[in-house]
Amino acid sequence: MKRSLGTCYYPEHWPEEIWAEDARRMVEAGLTWVRIGEFAWSRLEAVPGEYTFDWLDRAIETLGAAGLRVVLGTPTATPPRWLVDKHPNMLALDAEGRPRGFGSRRHYCFSHAGYHAECARIVTELAERYGRNPHVAAWQTDNEYGCHDTTISYSVAARDAFRGWLRARYRGVGNDGDIAALNAAWGNVFWSMEYDDFDQIELPNLTVTEPNPAHALAFRRFASDQVVAFNRAQVEIIRAHSDAPITHNYMGRITDFDHFKVGEDLDFASWDSYPLGFLEDRVGADADHQRRFARQGDPDFQAFHHDLYRAVGKGRWWVMEQQPGPVNWAPSNPAPAPGMVRLWSWEAFAHGAEAVCYFRWRQAPFAQEQMHSGLLRIDSADAPGLDEARKVASEIADAPDVSAAQAPIALIFDYDADAAWTVQPHGAGLSYFGLVFDTYKALRRLGLSVDILPPDTQDFSGYKVIAAPGLMHMPEPLKIALTQTQAQVVLGPRSGARDVDMCIPLPLPPAIPGLDVTVARVESLRADMPRPLKGGGAITGYCEDLEGRAEVLERSEDGNAVVCGTGHLRYVGAWLDQAALKRVMAAACADAGLQTLDLPDAVRVRDTGKERFWFNHDLHAANVEGRRLPPLSVLRETLPD
Amino acid sequence: MKRSLGTCYYPEHWPEEIWAEDARRMVEAGLTWVRIGEFAWSRLEAVPGEYTFDWLDRAIETLGAAGLRVVLGTPTATPPRWLVDKHPNMLALDAEGRPRGFGSRRHYCFSHAGYHAECARIVTELAERYGRNPHVAAWQTDNEYGCHDTTISYSVAARDAFRGWLRARYRGVGNDGDIAALNAAWGNVFWSMEYDDFDQIELPNLTVTEPNPAHALAFRRFASDQVVAFNRAQVEIIRAHSDAPITHNYMGRITDFDHFKVGEDLDFASWDSYPLGFLEDRVGADADHQRRFARQGDPDFQAFHHDLYRAVGKGRWWVMEQQPGPVNWAPSNPAPAPGMVRLWSWEAFAHGAEAVCYFRWRQAPFAQEQMHSGLLRIDSADAPGLDEARKVASEIADAPDVSAAQAPIALIFDYDADAAWTVQPHGAGLSYFGLVFDTYKALRRLGLSVDILPPDTQDFSGYKVIAAPGLMHMPEPLKIALTQTQAQVVLGPRSGARDVDMCIPLPLPPAIPGLDVTVARVESLRADMPRPLKGGGAITGYCEDLEGRAEVLERSEDGNAVVCGTGHLRYVGAWLDQAALKRVMAAACADAGLQTLDLPDAVRVRDTGKERFWFNHDLHAANVEGRRLPPLSVLRETLPD
Amino acid sequence: MKRSLGTCYYPEHWPEEIWAEDARRMVEAGLTWVRIGEFAWSRLEAVPGEYTFDWLDRAIETLGAAGLRVVLGTPTATPPRWLVDKHPNMLALDAEGRPRGFGSRRHYCFSHAGYHAECARIVTELAERYGRNPHVAAWQTDNEYGCHDTTISYSVAARDAFRGWLRARYRGVGNDGDIAALNAAWGNVFWSMEYDDFDQIELPNLTVTEPNPAHALAFRRFASDQVVAFNRAQVEIIRAHSDAPITHNYMGRITDFDHFKVGEDLDFASWDSYPLGFLEDRVGADADHQRRFARQGDPDFQAFHHDLYRAVGKGRWWVMEQQPGPVNWAPSNPAPAPGMVRLWSWEAFAHGAEAVCYFRWRQAPFAQEQMHSGLLRIDSADAPGLDEARKVASEIADAPDVSAAQAPIALIFDYDADAAWTVQPHGAGLSYFGLVFDTYKALRRLGLSVDILPPDTQDFSGYKVIAAPGLMHMPEPLKIALTQTQAQVVLGPRSGARDVDMCIPLPLPPAIPGLDVTVARVESLRADMPRPLKGGGAITGYCEDLEGRAEVLERSEDGNAVVCGTGHLRYVGAWLDQAALKRVMAAACADAGLQTLDLPDAVRVRDTGKERFWFNHDLHAANVEGRRLPPLSVLRETLPD
Repeated sequence: MKRSLGTCYYPEHWPEEIWAEDARRMVEAGLTWVRIGEFAWSRLEAVPGEYTFDWLDRAIETLGAAGLRVVLGTPTATPPRWLVDKHPNMLALDAEGRPRGFGSRRHYCFSHAGYHAECARIVTELAERYGRNPHVAAWQTDNEYGCHDTTISYSVAARDAFRGWLRARYRGVGNDGDIAALNAAWGNVFWSMEYDDFDQIELPNLTVTEPNPAHALAFRRFASDQVVAFNRAQVEIIRAHSDAPITHNYMGRITDFDHFKVGEDLDFASWDSYPLGFLEDRVGADADHQRRFARQGDPDFQAFHHDLYRAVGKGRWWVMEQQPGPVNWAPSNPAPAPGMVRLWSWEAFAHGAEAVCYFRWRQAPFAQEQMHSGLLRIDSADAPGLDEARKVASEIADAPDVSAAQAPIALIFDYDADAAWTVQPHGAGLSYFGLVFDTYKALRRLGLSVDILPPDTQDFSGYKVIAAPGLMHMPEPLKIALTQTQAQVVLGPRSGARDVDMCIPLPLPPAIPGLDVTVARVESLRADMPRPLKGGGAITGYCEDLEGRAEVLERSEDGNAVVCGTGHLRYVGAWLDQAALKRVMAAACADAGLQTLDLPDAVRVRDTGKERFWFNHDLHAANVEGRRLPPLSVLRETLPD
Repeated sequence: MKRSLGTCYYPEHWPEEIWAEDARRMVEAGLTWVRIGEFAWSRLEAVPGEYTFDWLDRAIETLGAAGLRVVLGTPTATPPRWLVDKHPNMLALDAEGRPRGFGSRRHYCFSHAGYHAECARIVTELAERYGRNPHVAAWQTDNEYGCHDTTISYSVAARDAFRGWLRARYRGVGNDGDIAALNAAWGNVFWSMEYDDFDQIELPNLTVTEPNPAHALAFRRFASDQVVAFNRAQVEIIRAHSDAPITHNYMGRITDFDHFKVGEDLDFASWDSYPLGFLEDRVGADADHQRRFARQGDPDFQAFHHDLYRAVGKGRWWVMEQQPGPVNWAPSNPAPAPGMVRLWSWEAFAHGAEAVCYFRWRQAPFAQEQMHSGLLRIDSADAPGLDEARKVASEIADAPDVSAAQAPIALIFDYDADAAWTVQPHGAGLSYFGLVFDTYKALRRLGLSVDILPPDTQDFSGYKVIAAPGLMHMPEPLKIALTQTQAQVVLGPRSGARDVDMCIPLPLPPAIPGLDVTVARVESLRADMPRPLKGGGAITGYCEDLEGRAEVLERSEDGNAVVCGTGHLRYVGAWLDQAALKRVMAAACADAGLQTLDLPDAVRVRDTGKERFWFNHDLHAANVEGRRLPPLSVLRETLPD
Repeated sequence: MKRSLGTCYYPEHWPEEIWAEDARRMVEAGLTWVRIGEFAWSRLEAVPGEYTFDWLDRAIETLGAAGLRVVLGTPTATPPRWLVDKHPNMLALDAEGRPRGFGSRRHYCFSHAGYHAECARIVTELAERYGRNPHVAAWQTDNEYGCHDTTISYSVAARDAFRGWLRARYRGVGNDGDIAALNAAWGNVFWSMEYDDFDQIELPNLTVTEPNPAHALAFRRFASDQVVAFNRAQVEIIRAHSDAPITHNYMGRITDFDHFKVGEDLDFASWDSYPLGFLEDRVGADADHQRRFARQGDPDFQAFHHDLYRAVGKGRWWVMEQQPGPVNWAPSNPAPAPGMVRLWSWEAFAHGAEAVCYFRWRQAPFAQEQMHSGLLRIDSADAPGLDEARKVASEIADAPDVSAAQAPIALIFDYDADAAWTVQPHGAGLSYFGLVFDTYKALRRLGLSVDILPPDTQDFSGYKVIAAPGLMHMPEPLKIALTQTQAQVVLGPRSGARDVDMCIPLPLPPAIPGLDVTVARVESLRADMPRPLKGGGAITGYCEDLEGRAEVLERSEDGNAVVCGTGHLRYVGAWLDQAALKRVMAAACADAGLQTLDLPDAVRVRDTGKERFWFNHDLHAANVEGRRLPPLSVLRETLPD
């Protein structure tokens, strides 16, 4: 199957008379897919228990008749008003204890049993009615789990479910919850925090000072599991009635539930890519970088997510929502530079996307996203993004399909580590996502293609270099696999720094067999006090004192060991800046026999099975490796066999 | 009548023995007016239903006997403690749902019927007793509506009243509320936000992500209407018993209710002018500007409000509270530079103020405003401001009265547009007030006098240039009037960008008859990425893509149309910096045959009927147009006939 | 008795098998003291009313047998979970009205009678059992009162107790509360804030705008008194059963209760010194200073507290918790530069500490402080701090004891003034602590040793210079004592600016007999607008206009009197920068015949009876007064007799 394009469409927003013409124009523009339905609950069930599917029947028929393939969303991200009247406690509570009310979207707590039942009901209705519809070619569950900080709820439902979750996790005789086991595992003797019963455990908000990190991490793990269970329930219902593949559209830079675990239940992954909104709101870059890439987006942020969701989807993934113009939700919302919509689309394909769908077909004149561009303007004229989409469609048609290949580099991403860093960053501004993303950026600046892998990976065959920074808790099988691999392995900082209950283990971290390195002490540093390395670059923000007999590969100017290694194992005892990270990674690549490039800050490459894509994110032309890349350009080269 | 001075006095704060001497000194200093009573409820009715007016009788008699004219305030901004016991739900709730309790002032919700009744009662008592008192020459209702963010309340009373307000606005058969009409008007199909009944509509706080902008704007309009109704009730009671004119003292930079609509019920407007506090707290200038004018105040901020309240008062207005020295409430509270109290007073007169009253007579040694200067120190010695007031009084006596005249420039200010921008700024830091104030500043730098007009103005005769930036919803009569006027008209950005229900209309904005300009796309820009214009200056923060056959008058360096025009109509498709705004406005003036100046940043002029006032806000002398203006000086020139 | 060292130990955290070895290693390292027990309530009373003291008996015996002296803490900072079930209302409420729940520590309201009773019970049990234990050589009450912002609670218990406190303070006939007296004292006539009854008085949170400063200050005084009473109850119980001295470990930069008043009930004071955490979190220095001293801590902050707690302890004081390595709780947590643990220890001794105890013995692998270093690592290896402690112990053994002497300079510190400034800073960023600390820093830069004294001091004999900045309310006896002393006295700014009820008094401040200076006007200034003095340096942030016939000693460049004096009395009418403060203080010293130095920014001296200590906090060597001080060094010189 060739790569394909699509869009997100809301038939319920428009007069039925224009559906057919919309469909015709979609097809004319070269689109294949149309996602619908995911916010339509109030139109599918305006009155409790009375379903009105006729309009949706006609919409699917109209779209399908035009030649489009429908992705049908379950509408559970937007329960209607009457449902909140029926289940007033279904609302999440925020960390301050206030209900997060009706009036926008995602107003539900993942732990509320009543809402679970309502979701099962509506999803069953949909699956029964459309499960065998020939035009329904895929399903999407809910919409952007976790968006608007909705993974975590401090409701009574969440509290009760958390207690049950803890009982199951800390089991004693007869498999009952063993509160002594929990007290011991968490170190609750500290500050007399010991519980007599699971029913005494509150959620970790509104404590006088910070809660026990073990408590906080357990709650985040629980919250993640609730998302997994919520999604799985929908998937099981759909599967019972449909053979069409099922996906969920993840949102960028949402890390507070385990996307891999949700992904295990899906047929393919998809994510929503808003490069300019992300740069303003989520990348975390400094002002200079944000200004430089204000109309292009960060050159690595989308690629990182592409590689991540390729792993989440076990190889199969889409961009379900692609920014086609200015959006509405960031602190500032500039228009993309001309050419970027095409570049973003090809970048997704180069990283393996099966489809890219633009959000949305026509800009809505009303409600919260009225300032969000579509492929069409409100007056149905073409918006600038449509031409770029059309061009991509024609390029797809004219060129051979993008091939696929395993990358030479594996980078492990662990949602649990992200939670652990969130609970205990140790220094202001330090985050696991930031550390992994910095590592990814360094690898990409070296011209390398990267596969992101989950932390339960045990087979690393085919990889030349494996990077696994910041995994605070390292599962034993992973340690073993990394010890036994033929690849070069780059660990640290904070690898294995905590046991499964967020306590510091003995022997001291990282405790990697075959690598005699011990983290003797840890410090965090002010952002304005970089600690230079002898070889150039610097430590920023976080530093460990390393002991042991492993070879010292990098030292700070003041003489401390910063990177140590033995054989194929390296441990990086610090958060390094880009200069230092690139050198460390380049050295590992050299040891692995991998050639690296030194790319300009706005140029990136992506190798697939048979080709190399060059992307120039710069508003100016770039000269790289004997090539001249025009501004904002995509260059597709065939690799020598 | 000549211009006059006054002060604000609290007889209840001082021993009765000193009232007469205070009154004598007021008269000696040249003051005419004394405002009293507006916070005295606990002394007028210490016990529910038992009135103690005798002290107020004597205070009015003492002040009147000395030759002063009394402005009597209704005390409804400070309900006494027992009243809150009687009506516990009269307190406003903040956006977090917490009651805003007793212990300072303005602790009431505008929607609480019980509090309405209490206000009617006390105002009736006052009006009956003092309505014909010969010394009571004017009335003030309440005090600074909206101050301390008190326009909006999230109480149950507000919620219920809002539902009623919506029912009245969205009417169906039999004039009942028609929920389907509301759903359609707001686009509630988006995210399944449709309601079955008005009683399901909550206030737009505590939603998961932002509420529907139509919902948020409706609530702001409702809140504004509640203030209008609250004020009107008092006015009607006073009118029934008194012929003295009625005013309200508005507070600077409060825009969350419609001052014009409240003003319709008043005989004259008044406002409270605290130039140094405003500069620190409300102007929104950068640090350099704040430092430069720390002892003088912004050179345009007071003038803007003078011109605004001249319109609110339909030509009649006062400064009811004029800063006479350091205040207590800003982040920093410097002393005014010597001469500024006089300059501010004359500036008010030059803009048409009938009276300027200094707040307050004697600094209070106790309570919240103990650090707020008066004309007298706490020890009754003259404070520095008193001498300046005395000088102004003698200058008034010695010189002819300030004449009045229509300005050549009209600038429309629309509170509803301010609400719409607040609901949907589209970019961080963008506000309607800021846009209008930037426009005003540019006009003033060009040496122009400005009339501010409400958005329901239809007769623009006499004006040479009309500026109407940022009116997101443009009423049809205004569009017609601007199309038909002889004046040069400068519109945009965002003119007519929304229909009356906060949706984007078709045809696309601005849809001005006779001006073929269409806003094809909108973007907001980071503050650190100005987009230069070919003619100098730059777009900052907000930009539109303009289409159409109108002549392009300004282009960005990268070639985009930024200002387009046809005949007398211009549309500015961006937020411009001062350099660009001045050029655009100067061009409109040139087309209108109006001469402009290029004033230094601290010098301003104001033309009245027969004279030109020059104000130098600089700590240094300024040379302008052949004149040398001493530091902090006022120069009054007779205009040639 | 010679100076000694100790550590903080948690036997309940470790297997009983290693206690003896831990004790042996403590003694081997030269430690004398071991503090235990202060967070162990859940292990002492796991079940309500069932005490398990056996493990504590054995721990004390083991430690004592090894030669250590035990400081036994009462566990009242960490009530166990079941106790919160028993008294759900014992939790404090924060300013937003939310309970501050179980799950960390200090989860109690000082005003809750039920919790008082529980504390009396557990403390009685402990005192009865260990009051005569030969190894228990001292007691500590609770832990770090006020830490985590816990002095102030907005609970119902606090509200009711506050009403009682007010009744007692404002007494009428028959010693009953006289609400009219309170209304008059607070000036409640302002804004109709008058009360009819004490039961109408709410806590001063959640008011619409700021509450009456008299109200806010009264509440802070009440909250302080609640801490005093809470502590006194424990002291009285312990005293009844033990002769061992009693202390409390105060936390640095906690000023919201009166440490002197708590100290009156103690036998000696102690405080917890975390120099690097403080620099990041509490000193309030600018980024350059923070970066410069990131691994050393501010050169004056610890010394200030040493001098403060010497006064709180009436001459007897300890450092109960000394940072031995990186901590866990600041925005960034760097490791101390090598040598700093020793330097900090000697600095404490030089300022008169009897003992310095390192927190903690072994780093904990679990719970909130798992990232807090100890003298031992988690794996029981020596952490870097242990070697430094060992070196200090041996230096103590080898050298004569540090002598004691009254300093030539007295600096008054008044917790009530700190509360008054907090209630009414008048300008952003202005605080009493900051003002006093700036004064202290200037004195120390002049090479002076300082005694900090409470505001009820009346005998100043022996002092050459007395500085008393910022005492907003000056008790009459203090005024008289300062007028009558032989020493040079430096007052202002804001001295005597308020009466005891937070009102501005007449005659106007400062009203010092013998000093004809009147504060005619007050202003606060932006931080970026320093007002230069003729002699160099500048006013920053706060300035007064001074009148009177006293000699003008310092003027601003624009001619205002800034420092005035008569005889031995000086009044400083501004917040001065370091250059100006040093000059003013040096002039007072010169008048007092005191010699001063001009020390580099990182070098400090401390004179005791017979010796001078030099401390170089710099990472580089310093040349001072003919000496060369190595980096991070301590130099001890014998003073000439």
